[in-house]
Amino acid sequence: MRGEPLDAETIVSATEEVLRRHGPEKATVVDVARLLGVSHGSVYRHFPSKVALREAVIRRWLDRVRDELTEAIAEPGLTQPERLRRLLTTMFAAKWAKARVDPELFATFRVLAIEHSAESSAHVDFLLAQVRAVVADGIASGEFAAGEPDVIARAVLGATSRFHDPKHAEDWRSTEIEADAEAVIELLLRGLRSRSDT
Amino acid sequence: MRGEPLDAETIVSATEEVLRRHGPEKATVVDVARLLGVSHGSVYRHFPSKVALREAVIRRWLDRVRDELTEAIAEPGLTQPERLRRLLTTMFAAKWAKARVDPELFATFRVLAIEHSAESSAHVDFLLAQVRAVVADGIASGEFAAGEPDVIARAVLGATSRFHDPKHAEDWRSTEIEADAEAVIELLLRGLRSRSDT
Repeated sequence: MRGEPLDAETIVSATEEVLRRHGPEKATVVDVARLLGVSHGSVYRHFPSKVALREAVIRRWLDRVRDELTEAIAEPGLTQPERLRRLLTTMFAAKWAKARVDPELFATFRVLAIEHSAESSAHVDFLLAQVRAVVADGIASGEFAAGEPDVIARAVLGATSRFHDPKHAEDWRSTEIEADAEAVIELLLRGLRSRSDT
Repeated sequence: MRGEPLDAETIVSATEEVLRRHGPEKATVVDVARLLGVSHGSVYRHFPSKVALREAVIRRWLDRVRDELTEAIAEPGLTQPERLRRLLTTMFAAKWAKARVDPELFATFRVLAIEHSAESSAHVDFLLAQVRAVVADGIASGEFAAGEPDVIARAVLGATSRFHDPKHAEDWRSTEIEADAEAVIELLLRGLRSRSDT
């Protein structure tokens, strides 16, 4: 038995470790309790079910990505094109790093994201809203050409699927992925800036 | 036994049908021969192995896509932005139609494309070359801004992965996919046209 009181954060970390070791199919609440050296009742006091526990794991990962993204574009003095570039490269880098360094856990996150589709949809909505806000700011400042921010934000995320959609996780091992992402971002920024002179 | 002489084209069509019915794991040369009412020796006279037969199926599908694309941009009098738009929408539509109308066979094509990776790589090279040629023509005519056609062609295909990469076949059932593709193509064309005035 552990000395310190058991908190939710510690349980979520232990669950990540169990998922990493056993995979999403086999991981159980008993495994989590065993790793922590507590009874499974102690885990259930914080998370009423295995589903709730798994949801907490995916939510923490998504929350961290959200925090990173918010921080990346918070720096004062950035132009809107610079903010959009940062938003996208930070989003890609967070996923690439996870998929490369910890592919088992990343694969698990994918399973969990499909299981908890409400969390995943909320995350996509968050990403869309972030891109949309930068696009709208850029249109307001004249750095981007006039347009419908909702449509443009969807287009920007759609055009960068290869770099953020987990379906492409295998592509992220390629050494060319950084240069490819850079070329796409450059082309998109040119499109966003361009006057409709055609 | 059939009356007409057996040709390679007929065997490939029968193989498609067998693949559709039994799936890529279970389909055999004997199934193909049975469907045609011939001995499996007759099939082997045209295709020395099961591998050669499967390769012929994926090659015919890719050849047809190639022909469609070549035809789509052959019409005289088109501007380069129009040709690029046609090239992309024809490429997407060919895949969307197959994945929607005949999802089993499309899934089989994916398996075969992975099996015969040389055919697939050649196809990607063909697509890249087509896009590259239109981009280069557009730069030469002044319809597109100056740039490196190889890099730009890769960026255009990368930015449209969501619409042509079979990993996204599930997305293609969405009624929003046409509008999404349209918005991305529009943004890319603006990026290609834009003077480097920033």
